[in-house]
Amino acid sequence: MKALVLTREKSPLEYIDRPDPVANAAEGEVIVHLRHAALNRRDYYITKGMYPGVEPPVILGSDGAGLTEGGREVIINPSMNWGPDPRAQQRKFAIIGMPSDGTFAEQIIVDKAQLFDKPSHLSSAEAAALPLAGLTAYRALMSKCQVRRGERVLVTGAGGGVAQFATQFARAAGAEVWVTSSSDSKIQQAVSLGANGGANYTKDGWAKSLKADAEAFDVIIDSAGGDGFKDLVSLAAPAARICFYGGTRGKINGLSPQIIFWKQLTIMGSTMGTADEFEQMLRFVREQGIHPQIDRVVPLADGAAAVESMGTSSQFGKIVLEV
Amino acid sequence: MKALVLTREKSPLEYIDRPDPVANAAEGEVIVHLRHAALNRRDYYITKGMYPGVEPPVILGSDGAGLTEGGREVIINPSMNWGPDPRAQQRKFAIIGMPSDGTFAEQIIVDKAQLFDKPSHLSSAEAAALPLAGLTAYRALMSKCQVRRGERVLVTGAGGGVAQFATQFARAAGAEVWVTSSSDSKIQQAVSLGANGGANYTKDGWAKSLKADAEAFDVIIDSAGGDGFKDLVSLAAPAARICFYGGTRGKINGLSPQIIFWKQLTIMGSTMGTADEFEQMLRFVREQGIHPQIDRVVPLADGAAAVESMGTSSQFGKIVLEV
Repeated sequence: MKALVLTREKSPLEYIDRPDPVANAAEGEVIVHLRHAALNRRDYYITKGMYPGVEPPVILGSDGAGLTEGGREVIINPSMNWGPDPRAQQRKFAIIGMPSDGTFAEQIIVDKAQLFDKPSHLSSAEAAALPLAGLTAYRALMSKCQVRRGERVLVTGAGGGVAQFATQFARAAGAEVWVTSSSDSKIQQAVSLGANGGANYTKDGWAKSLKADAEAFDVIIDSAGGDGFKDLVSLAAPAARICFYGGTRGKINGLSPQIIFWKQLTIMGSTMGTADEFEQMLRFVREQGIHPQIDRVVPLADGAAAVESMGTSSQFGKIVLEV
Repeated sequence: MKALVLTREKSPLEYIDRPDPVANAAEGEVIVHLRHAALNRRDYYITKGMYPGVEPPVILGSDGAGLTEGGREVIINPSMNWGPDPRAQQRKFAIIGMPSDGTFAEQIIVDKAQLFDKPSHLSSAEAAALPLAGLTAYRALMSKCQVRRGERVLVTGAGGGVAQFATQFARAAGAEVWVTSSSDSKIQQAVSLGANGGANYTKDGWAKSLKADAEAFDVIIDSAGGDGFKDLVSLAAPAARICFYGGTRGKINGLSPQIIFWKQLTIMGSTMGTADEFEQMLRFVREQGIHPQIDRVVPLADGAAAVESMGTSSQFGKIVLEV
C-alpha cells in the first residue's frame, strides 16, 4: 500500500510503498481502509524533531475515517490505552501515528475499541477532521472547564483545529465566544463560525479592546502559553477556569500569584481525552449538528507538503488528506 | 479601651486608647469582649504598606476569641460579605481588621453572622489562633484540592499558620504529608505535628530527596510562588492539584505548559473562604480533635513588636495576643 512515512528523524515525510498490514483478529485488531485522514500540529512537530520518543520508520497520522472490511463506516479514536483514571492517562498511553503506524496510508490496523460509527451528518472528509482536535477541545472545554450556558469564553489562536472546535462547542453549549489571532481574516472566519468577536494580539491595546467588548472571561482555552499567558489571567473573571492544551509560545512567565488567588482562578493543563469523552464528543457533535471546518482537501500523495505548510499556520480549520 | 492601632501608613502599630465601640443591635451588630487575638502575615504586610487600600487610623487584627455581652464564648469568622457565589468572593468582600476595626483591642463590633461557638476542646488562645489560617487552609486543601485518604500532600513553608493547619488537616483526612522549609528545626516540628518528613529548600538537591522519599505529590499547598513554583510542578503526580494562597516570592516564572498538560495538572489560587467553609472547618477541627500550634502568647500591649517580628518568619505556629 501507499503511505506517508517518516523514514528518519527530522525529515519531511516520504510517500512510499509499505507492506499491507495483517490484522490479528484474535487480539481484537481490525483493518480500516482509510478514505480520509487529517493533519494535526503534532505531525508537523514530529517531522521537525520537536517531539519526544520519535522512532522512524513510522507512518504518521492520528486522524482517520474509512471502512472496515465488513463495510462499517468508522472514525478512529486516536487516544489509545488511556487507562482506568479519567483524570490522567496512564504511562502506556499512546496516540495513533507514532510510535504505532498511523492514518496517512491506505490501510491501518487498530484495536476495535478505537472504532466508532461515523456520524451520519458528516462527510468522510469532515469525519476525518474531527477526532484528535475534537476530543482535545471537548475535554478542555467541557470536562475540565465545564462551560455553562451564558458564560463568556475566550479561545486563543483562532484557525487551529482545537480552537475551531472549542469555538463551535462553546457556542453550541450556549456560551458567548471571543477569539484571538494574529490575523484579522481568521477572526472574521471565527465570527462566521459563531464567535461574537475577537482581537488581533499583534496590535497594541488588544486586551483592552477585548475587555471593553466582553468585560471578562469565565473560561479561556489557550494553546500558546508563553509570556502572553499573563494577559489571559488579567482577562479572567472571578472564578474563571483557564485550560491550555498546547504551549507554542514556550514557558509561562510573569504570573502574579496575588491576582490568581484573589480572583480564585483555576488553571489547568489538558491533553487528548478518554474513550468516554470521545463518545460524549461524538454525541454532542451529532446532537448539535456541528460540521468541522475544513481548510482544504489534498491527495495523500501531496501530504508531505501539506504537513510542511503547517509551519506557517496559514490554514483556518483542518487540512484533510484524501486517500 | 486599649487597642493596637495603625495610625498612619507604613508604620508600626501603636498601643493607644480608643473609644469603646457602641453596637447597633437593630442592625445585627454585637460587641465581643476579646480574650485573645492572633497575628497573621496580613497584619505585618499592612504595617509595611504592602497591602492595597490601607486607610488609617484602624485597629488591625483578623483573628479573635472572646465573650459576647450575653456571656457566649465565641470565635469570629474574619471573612465578611463573601456573597452568593461560593467559587469567588463578591466585590464588597472584606476581612475583619482593615478597613473595619479588628481584633487587636479589648472589644470589637461585629455582625452576629460572624460569630461561631468556640470549639469546647480549645482554650481561648487556641481558638483565637484558628480562624483566618484555618479557614484559608480548609478551603485550599479540602474545598479546592479535595484531598483524599492515602494521597501524598506537600505543604511549603512549614511554620506559617496556614501551612500548619494544612499539615494537620491533611493528616486528619488520612493523607501522608511532607513539608518544605528553610529551617531544619521547623521541618522537625512539622514532623511532630504529624508530617512524614520534609526537605530544606535552601539545600541543593532538596527536590530530588523529596522525590526519593515520596515519589510525587497528589496535592501541593503553596504560599510562595516565585521562581521555585516550577519545582512544585516537577514534583506533582499526574492529575495533581496545586493550590496557593500566597505569593511571598513574587511572580511565577518558567512554567512548562507541556509538563502541565501532559500531567493533566490543576493549579488554583485560593483566598479565605465562605461562611459555610468556616462552619465545616470548625466541625472538622472539633471532630478530629485538632489543636492549633501556638508559637507564643504575648500581652496585647506588646503586640506591635510581635507584628514586627513576623518579618523574620522565625515563629512556628501562631503568635497570640492576650487581651
